[in-house]
Amino acid sequence: MRKVAIVATGITKFDKSERPLDMIMLSAVKKMFESGKNLEQHDIDAVLASTNANRNYIANIISELSGIKPKISHSVESLCNSGTNSLVSAYAYVSSGLADVVLVVGADKANNPGLVLNWDMSRGEYTHPIFWSSMFTSAHMRKYGTSLEDLAYVSVKNHDNALSNPDAFFDKSFSFDDVMKSKNLTENVRLLDCSMPCDGAAAILVCSEEKARKITDTPVWISGIGQQTTSASFTKNNDLSSMESTRHAVTQAYNMSGKTADDVDVVELHDAFSICEIIGLEEMGFCKKGEGSKLVRSLYDTCDKKINPRGGLLGAGHPLGATGIAQVVEVCRQLGGSAGKRQVPAAKTGLVHNMSAGATSSTVLVLES
Amino acid sequence: MRKVAIVATGITKFDKSERPLDMIMLSAVKKMFESGKNLEQHDIDAVLASTNANRNYIANIISELSGIKPKISHSVESLCNSGTNSLVSAYAYVSSGLADVVLVVGADKANNPGLVLNWDMSRGEYTHPIFWSSMFTSAHMRKYGTSLEDLAYVSVKNHDNALSNPDAFFDKSFSFDDVMKSKNLTENVRLLDCSMPCDGAAAILVCSEEKARKITDTPVWISGIGQQTTSASFTKNNDLSSMESTRHAVTQAYNMSGKTADDVDVVELHDAFSICEIIGLEEMGFCKKGEGSKLVRSLYDTCDKKINPRGGLLGAGHPLGATGIAQVVEVCRQLGGSAGKRQVPAAKTGLVHNMSAGATSSTVLVLES
Repeated sequence: MRKVAIVATGITKFDKSERPLDMIMLSAVKKMFESGKNLEQHDIDAVLASTNANRNYIANIISELSGIKPKISHSVESLCNSGTNSLVSAYAYVSSGLADVVLVVGADKANNPGLVLNWDMSRGEYTHPIFWSSMFTSAHMRKYGTSLEDLAYVSVKNHDNALSNPDAFFDKSFSFDDVMKSKNLTENVRLLDCSMPCDGAAAILVCSEEKARKITDTPVWISGIGQQTTSASFTKNNDLSSMESTRHAVTQAYNMSGKTADDVDVVELHDAFSICEIIGLEEMGFCKKGEGSKLVRSLYDTCDKKINPRGGLLGAGHPLGATGIAQVVEVCRQLGGSAGKRQVPAAKTGLVHNMSAGATSSTVLVLES
Repeated sequence: MRKVAIVATGITKFDKSERPLDMIMLSAVKKMFESGKNLEQHDIDAVLASTNANRNYIANIISELSGIKPKISHSVESLCNSGTNSLVSAYAYVSSGLADVVLVVGADKANNPGLVLNWDMSRGEYTHPIFWSSMFTSAHMRKYGTSLEDLAYVSVKNHDNALSNPDAFFDKSFSFDDVMKSKNLTENVRLLDCSMPCDGAAAILVCSEEKARKITDTPVWISGIGQQTTSASFTKNNDLSSMESTRHAVTQAYNMSGKTADDVDVVELHDAFSICEIIGLEEMGFCKKGEGSKLVRSLYDTCDKKINPRGGLLGAGHPLGATGIAQVVEVCRQLGGSAGKRQVPAAKTGLVHNMSAGATSSTVLVLES
């Protein structure tokens, strides 16, 4: 099997604007091109577009707009983990030899579909993800004594981290009081416990080892991949205080890479809601089950930016199809030592955790410098 | 690199009905399961859904409805060649070792988006594919003397072939007179020169050599893959009497498989319009450039079912996301000797040609028994 690297990255400022989806995607692609050495359009033989937008043929449109004539081009959709699904697909193309250099670009706008899973609505189940967030939060509280204050630590920490990320949606910090008193949306879920749908795009270039050396001096290697789908509706989860798909995905990713949680220096964790970071830390082995809140408090108290240095989804915003790719961009920059003020010292091994729809599917990636 | 096989197939009757997309997809998956030996849900570790429908998370929904808990699941979209894009993706997953057994299922309904490329409309270009069909047809007529009668041969032949395909949309033959006098839609394009958007689904199971032997005694091997995107808008094509993306794709597929047109026993050719079969035959080396019409007449006169035995898109119908997979199903059945009345004698090597949006992208596959 061929080794697969990420060799160039681009990301837009996450915001809300009138700019159309194509233009946002194109901005990320342009920045990606600028980050690669001697990189030209004809080097690229596949283009995968990750989005929840109802935009037929968008991978081909972006190819034409970018001056790329790829062999392979299509879009990939899996709600909030569309981005990492595209990346894993790119890995498969390169590893199998069908492609050498794959552009993966993801984008969504704040009002794109995908925030609400219509299938659940059609079954009279849930009209918005805040309801599953509410149930996960309440279940974890009952089982492990997690408190609203613990959740506020996640929110305050990640919004604080976002202050050193110029591409983040939020550019101000929130106090504990701000979070505790922010509008209560549903049981145990406040406005500042929720990530913000917004506009944004991110792009990465995935390629074979041979090509990698020509494009960058600091390739990031994809050494572990794990993916798991448990269902399409979170009600199939037996235990709402856990995220089963994440547990399976991280096990696969650790096994493939030969790494454990102890080896990981930096983590992008899918904190769609505050509770996700607490459960995610537990599922991925960064603490024992039930001790996620304690770990979050400790990270905050020691100013440790290891978890969600760019601010996570809570601080950076959540443009669905871009999110997984933006997480990968961040870990690549951390491993390449180019993360600026938010640099985690001597980061060599990173983890990306990206999930969808009440953790009914998860992707976990191990990346190494 | 691991060898990759197709080991089970399922397809629905192509029609127009009130059945929702999920149910149509599920019917094809059920038939696929019935065609495999000792095949169970837990054998499947990836589910790829090919559709133009705006249905978030459909791969996960189909997984849950089918009782499958895959590692990998997402949807793939590339207009009319979404189906073969999914299949090539499945090949990459298996070949790379990320998956062993991949379910690929495609479906669309007659009124799903994708028939018209909104991007072209937004640029004031073309409101319907019949316009590019018209321009391709007229260009080929001018350059090679192709006639309206030649086009009628394609339509009559493929509708005739569909008579021995119980899953085809059309179940009646059309005379030359019927075609020649069918409603003129735009210059040189008549109603019976156009494939019919309809409802339909098709499913295939793609797997590694090791798994293949457990599921079927007659695996079909994917020995050649070619894909090419030239643009997202056919106006970038320099020569409207040719299909550049198909030429590149078939060259790649022949090179990978070591086969040539002479080795091919049966072909599924993307005859979205009559002119596509004539140009496609030329581009894929079944005759010299400009002699496609002559070949089509000869096929008809000798009752040779080698090209589009199930009736092609013209006779079988064109449910966009299902089409590429339905083509693969047909070639698998031909190579397995189970194509019934439409069986091409002693077929060992098959070709699938699937394209999108005025031939701006093409996939060509070589399949072997």
